[in-house]
Amino acid sequence: MIPLSTRRATITAFALALISTGPVVLSAQTGPDVARAYRQAHEPQLVRDFAELLSYPNMAFTSQIREAALYIRDEMRAVGVNTRLVEIEGGSPLILGELRVPGATRTLGIYVHYDGQPVDIRNWTNNPWQPTLYSRALDAGGEPIPLPEDGDEVDPDWRIYARSAGDDKAPIAAILPVLRSFAESGITPTSNLIFMFDGEEEAGSRNLGQYMEMERELLDEVDIWLFFDGPAHASGRPQLVYGVRGAAGMEVTVYGALRNLHSGHYGNWAPDTGNVLAHLLASMKDEDGNVLIEGWYETFDPIGEEERAALEAMPQWDDELKEELGLVRTEGEPESLPERLLVPALNVRGITSGNTGSLARNVIPNTAVASLGIRMVKGNTAPQLRQLIVDHIERQGFHIVETDPDIETRLRYPRIAKVTGGMSGSVAARTSMADPFAQSIQAAASAAADRAFGAGSLVVAPGMGGTLPLYLFTEVARKPAIVVPVANHDNNQHAPDENLRIANLWYAIDLYAQLMTMPTTLF
Amino acid sequence: MIPLSTRRATITAFALALISTGPVVLSAQTGPDVARAYRQAHEPQLVRDFAELLSYPNMAFTSQIREAALYIRDEMRAVGVNTRLVEIEGGSPLILGELRVPGATRTLGIYVHYDGQPVDIRNWTNNPWQPTLYSRALDAGGEPIPLPEDGDEVDPDWRIYARSAGDDKAPIAAILPVLRSFAESGITPTSNLIFMFDGEEEAGSRNLGQYMEMERELLDEVDIWLFFDGPAHASGRPQLVYGVRGAAGMEVTVYGALRNLHSGHYGNWAPDTGNVLAHLLASMKDEDGNVLIEGWYETFDPIGEEERAALEAMPQWDDELKEELGLVRTEGEPESLPERLLVPALNVRGITSGNTGSLARNVIPNTAVASLGIRMVKGNTAPQLRQLIVDHIERQGFHIVETDPDIETRLRYPRIAKVTGGMSGSVAARTSMADPFAQSIQAAASAAADRAFGAGSLVVAPGMGGTLPLYLFTEVARKPAIVVPVANHDNNQHAPDENLRIANLWYAIDLYAQLMTMPTTLF
Repeated sequence: MIPLSTRRATITAFALALISTGPVVLSAQTGPDVARAYRQAHEPQLVRDFAELLSYPNMAFTSQIREAALYIRDEMRAVGVNTRLVEIEGGSPLILGELRVPGATRTLGIYVHYDGQPVDIRNWTNNPWQPTLYSRALDAGGEPIPLPEDGDEVDPDWRIYARSAGDDKAPIAAILPVLRSFAESGITPTSNLIFMFDGEEEAGSRNLGQYMEMERELLDEVDIWLFFDGPAHASGRPQLVYGVRGAAGMEVTVYGALRNLHSGHYGNWAPDTGNVLAHLLASMKDEDGNVLIEGWYETFDPIGEEERAALEAMPQWDDELKEELGLVRTEGEPESLPERLLVPALNVRGITSGNTGSLARNVIPNTAVASLGIRMVKGNTAPQLRQLIVDHIERQGFHIVETDPDIETRLRYPRIAKVTGGMSGSVAARTSMADPFAQSIQAAASAAADRAFGAGSLVVAPGMGGTLPLYLFTEVARKPAIVVPVANHDNNQHAPDENLRIANLWYAIDLYAQLMTMPTTLF
Repeated sequence: MIPLSTRRATITAFALALISTGPVVLSAQTGPDVARAYRQAHEPQLVRDFAELLSYPNMAFTSQIREAALYIRDEMRAVGVNTRLVEIEGGSPLILGELRVPGATRTLGIYVHYDGQPVDIRNWTNNPWQPTLYSRALDAGGEPIPLPEDGDEVDPDWRIYARSAGDDKAPIAAILPVLRSFAESGITPTSNLIFMFDGEEEAGSRNLGQYMEMERELLDEVDIWLFFDGPAHASGRPQLVYGVRGAAGMEVTVYGALRNLHSGHYGNWAPDTGNVLAHLLASMKDEDGNVLIEGWYETFDPIGEEERAALEAMPQWDDELKEELGLVRTEGEPESLPERLLVPALNVRGITSGNTGSLARNVIPNTAVASLGIRMVKGNTAPQLRQLIVDHIERQGFHIVETDPDIETRLRYPRIAKVTGGMSGSVAARTSMADPFAQSIQAAASAAADRAFGAGSLVVAPGMGGTLPLYLFTEVARKPAIVVPVANHDNNQHAPDENLRIANLWYAIDLYAQLMTMPTTLF
């Protein structure tokens, strides 16, 4: 493992690793060898192909996204994948591809999304759908350079700037050359491959459940799903992630008088809604970040031995993060961020009461509102956590209502809280690290990471903090699913000037070749 | 005293009292008799005169307000008051009037403001400067009626709607006929009278201190100031008030990470600013409304025996107020509102952090801001209370800053609070109820209230909750000052559809006649 003390050092180390890694030790030409040799022979072409893929506008539910889908379908067909669009009225097309391998007994499902986040074009250095190559990262002084011609040397430190460069077209740009190299060299994957490219992920994958229901027969064949999405670990090292958190939001409103009151005429006498809300919120979580709501930490699936071991093995990255974010203290210290991501979180997303700053007036606001953000882990459901919160609020002496109280209700109860939302949300998912399918994936990913980053470089995380539609696979379709990211951690996903470092595209090619040709004896 | 169980009953009782009160028992024609007889003989004219006064637009610092000042100056001159405008560059004119009484040994200062609150004309039923007479209150089904002709009967329940009808042109509309009646009947006031009509009160009386300094020699003659401003007691009964609270505002900001963080990636680990602020605010005041800041209740002048006795004698009006405002509980129970107004108040004027409602997003906001409203009582100063708050925040473990902390500061202190504002504010004032000048005023006001409302109807309050520039008189000029309101309590001051009940104009005439002719032997 390469010691990586700072991010800048990491990038350099990554580049050196790519250059210094010699030929693999296998005597016969393996899938990963073939894919790497193909890449090395065609680097300028692969960069230009990626740029072409990125030039298709791809916001979900726009009229343009079908053009992007048709382009990808045709590219997939050209490398031998039986590919079609699945479409429903009002949806963005789902791209489904099948690659059958004679004699294969296992099937890998590969999930990618080809849609991208909306853009505010004014904040971009270049047009987000006119991919622009830079000599390095913009904030590291990168300069624009032309796309390479055949025969040019390609620097793995180059970055290509465009919407979806990192999130999430890079996997498509890597899958295509891997399959092309296999086809040209007569390599066959060890598993059947089913590709599913979502066109609505950044808009909440709202039709994905229906698409999966429509294609249930095909998708039932899948033994394990791989989510080709997300960035590398904050340390810059590649990672593999076994779970995601779910998210829900709810809102609590506390009430004072029927109307805002003059703080002179009534201050010291009328209920001070900001203070009432403060006491309620303070009762929910202590100053060290421990949720005080009864039952909160008894709601979720226990963390297994493998998960605990993985947590132990993860890079200690909290100090770097704290320095970057300007923090001396974090919630739940001395537990690390990865540990904290495995228990349900409760946060204040916002508070609104009266006004502050130049808008502040001499009133006692008649309401104070808190928006609560809940992050669930496997075993949690939104209604379950919501109920714990509601019970807690009741125990603080509040009468719970669902709509603003009328005068009769106000005159009956000394403390009233309106609770809305929180009945649904995206669902948490986690695949057991003891799962034999998952262990095969991890072995293959580890081998690819060894190649690209050095031995032992793969970070294995039991869970990540964010949300993906993983639960449709793990909870609805009941299949294991693992997130296998390739993008550089600083790819600016969801933000202006999204980019991919070329080295990460090369890593994706190594990784996918490894995964597609891994031994299936384990599962 | 008339039992007044509800506001509606009060209004009726008031009307009956005005009609049923017979001639006074003094044998000679007294000032109050003369003024009342004059009013009764000229009611339609007085209503029309008031409408004319109200038709002058009077927002402070507008070009129109000088027209209003000139009109009032001329009206005052017409009743024998030596009146002039005092003007400074950029200010609204101060109207100063003198009425010298040969042989008088005492001088009353009479403060009124002739400017009015800004209007949002869209929320008014009629143009705020086209005074409109109604058969009763709008919200009691009143209908517009024409201004009365001479000989018409005037219903004391009529209301005149216009900006400043209640706050604060009614006193001017009552002073004029009192002085006119005195002049016509050869009655002389018992004190010299100095009238000071402020043209900037609703804009903070920002030049009043300077005006008073310019006219110091004249104003030094005043023995006691009467503030003709404000509404009746909430019970509908007339009142007299010995003090006002001061007001200051300050703002506290607590900090999380350098930027808003994704609540999925960092929730449970990054500091939850809403929760941090909640703990801080909860530490400042308990759930019963007691301020927990060390020293808070040791900062102000003690409440004297007379004040305690007055509190005892005040109407028990909390239950009615709670019912009107939809409250079961109030801060500091079982203390009543008038008691609570004699100690300094701390309220949350507003909280801002992230967003709520449809704008809520899955972030951990990087700041949470609370705007604090402080209401001071006599003895308090803004810097003194601010310091107690700052000390308290420090004791909660926060490092105090005055501007947003830089990264070095963030990395040095686990908890940081920015405190801004609160160094100045309007000043509290209270005139001792033991003051002999004040006791004379109270006796005269009580007599006028007896006439209009029935025996013992005057409510004597040691202090009111709001703010007036009383301190310029009590603290700077070192004179006693008392607030003597006449407007109906439901006059909608500072709001659309401001109005005065005609009965309250008649009460003002009784009251001022009594005050201007009260015995001066007591002082």
